[in-house]
Amino acid sequence: MLLHIIYLIAITAEAVTGALSAGRQRMDLFGVVTIACVTALGGGSVRDVILGHYPLGWVKHPEFLYYTIGAALFTIFVARWLHYLRTIFLILDGLGLVAFTLIGCAIARELNCPTIVVLIAGMLTGVSGGVLRDVLCNQVPLVFQKELYASVSLCTGVAYLCLLYFQVNDNTATLLCLSGGLLLRLLAIKYSWRIPTFTYDDNMH
Amino acid sequence: MLLHIIYLIAITAEAVTGALSAGRQRMDLFGVVTIACVTALGGGSVRDVILGHYPLGWVKHPEFLYYTIGAALFTIFVARWLHYLRTIFLILDGLGLVAFTLIGCAIARELNCPTIVVLIAGMLTGVSGGVLRDVLCNQVPLVFQKELYASVSLCTGVAYLCLLYFQVNDNTATLLCLSGGLLLRLLAIKYSWRIPTFTYDDNMH
Amino acid sequence: MLLHIIYLIAITAEAVTGALSAGRQRMDLFGVVTIACVTALGGGSVRDVILGHYPLGWVKHPEFLYYTIGAALFTIFVARWLHYLRTIFLILDGLGLVAFTLIGCAIARELNCPTIVVLIAGMLTGVSGGVLRDVLCNQVPLVFQKELYASVSLCTGVAYLCLLYFQVNDNTATLLCLSGGLLLRLLAIKYSWRIPTFTYDDNMH
Repeated sequence: MLLHIIYLIAITAEAVTGALSAGRQRMDLFGVVTIACVTALGGGSVRDVILGHYPLGWVKHPEFLYYTIGAALFTIFVARWLHYLRTIFLILDGLGLVAFTLIGCAIARELNCPTIVVLIAGMLTGVSGGVLRDVLCNQVPLVFQKELYASVSLCTGVAYLCLLYFQVNDNTATLLCLSGGLLLRLLAIKYSWRIPTFTYDDNMH
Repeated sequence: MLLHIIYLIAITAEAVTGALSAGRQRMDLFGVVTIACVTALGGGSVRDVILGHYPLGWVKHPEFLYYTIGAALFTIFVARWLHYLRTIFLILDGLGLVAFTLIGCAIARELNCPTIVVLIAGMLTGVSGGVLRDVLCNQVPLVFQKELYASVSLCTGVAYLCLLYFQVNDNTATLLCLSGGLLLRLLAIKYSWRIPTFTYDDNMH
Repeated sequence: MLLHIIYLIAITAEAVTGALSAGRQRMDLFGVVTIACVTALGGGSVRDVILGHYPLGWVKHPEFLYYTIGAALFTIFVARWLHYLRTIFLILDGLGLVAFTLIGCAIARELNCPTIVVLIAGMLTGVSGGVLRDVLCNQVPLVFQKELYASVSLCTGVAYLCLLYFQVNDNTATLLCLSGGLLLRLLAIKYSWRIPTFTYDDNMH
């Protein structure tokens, strides 16, 4: 199935971003592999724990772990050339964000969750791997500060549910949302679209 | 039921404290809403995940999410005037702490947990939303450093269990503990009551 | 049973390391007790939540909480003399790491998890209490940066599974892995063995 293949590409891309983040903190090999796994598989794990959806994906399909560990080790060897691949990885990362979101929404729908919980399950899957990565690397999660990211996840989820509501076929809806969400993410990066920031300063008054 | 109304006030007040904390980190709208939801609903979620009590409150009652999201957006618009309301919010926050604690204890009692686990469930519900807020905003959790907060939660839980042990009616016990706990919290703020700090310095010796 | 006694020693030792870490951040008594409990019991709790293995250990055996709370309070009173005991605590901490790992592997095996998940369950149990401690104290988790630690946990788990695969008796395998893992950890401290670090700098190119 298409979504499954995209999922495998997505966890690989997310594992690479996790490994690079660990390298910026000068972690050892074990830390790099751990952060890579948490980044790639953490989003789905958070979703499954919150929804009580056991066993977790990587417990049932341990091959996901092999892919992410392999991607982390591979990253260490090729890191010095990765800046040539920057564009490819931004695309893969965007694809991962959108694919994770659709998978999260689909699983919450199977569990008969209310609509807003379906959207949140999609966003948790898409975004919380990166949040865990940033917390473990002791940084304010990037997702709350940079250009459209979680918003892309939310829009993708809303579009998916709307299409299903109007009885569009599930595969068609998935493909439409994948391409639309990816396009939105790439446009957001290219034109630095951001949503407004809220700045609160206790001493401002 | 009284506790339910107080719960709604409490999650609203906690959502406001979360939104303000996100504003101090200059997060975008999405970050503000996320931190608000985590602060308001994270305590109960942590408790439910730890006790295996599924589905989580906000999965079953998605209207809780609408209240917290609404409170976060409202905060953004009124933040500049909030310093006039500081006293009211300290009271609401204290009420929330005590109400969350009593709800956490009640749920753990229904699950037939041992006494110390009931107390911990109360404290987790009262306190861990704020801990998650501070970790996501990359700060040492305030709860471990400022005036009586978790201790108020503990005292409230102990008092509640004692009253129930002496066969006081559940509603009476709840009301007594709510007012007693809130009074303790407000006195602690007014007189800066703290519990002793433990300072350990490796180089001290 | 031997492993049970070692487990009690291990949670006590881990509680002491948590209390000292909280003292370095000048936390109050409540913070010290909380960080001690999270350090000692957090690893097993993370494993149980991820595997859906309810109720958690300390919910079923609340006496574990009494040991860790007692150890944390005890630490506050004896902290000034603890540097004399540094060697003993390094040994106890190493014993705890290895014992936690073996317990985690044993529980995942009972749940019929795949091999790699059994190893991860062992490492999660051995290591994640310390990771939670460091995140709550707002530090980059030490486990990703210092001498062999998680690697000791991994080697212990691998050795344990190999011995069981070759039909070695469970108690014998446990004893062999306990002593071997502890020896490896102590040698790693003595000779500052480290695994290679991955340093990635965006501006390097």
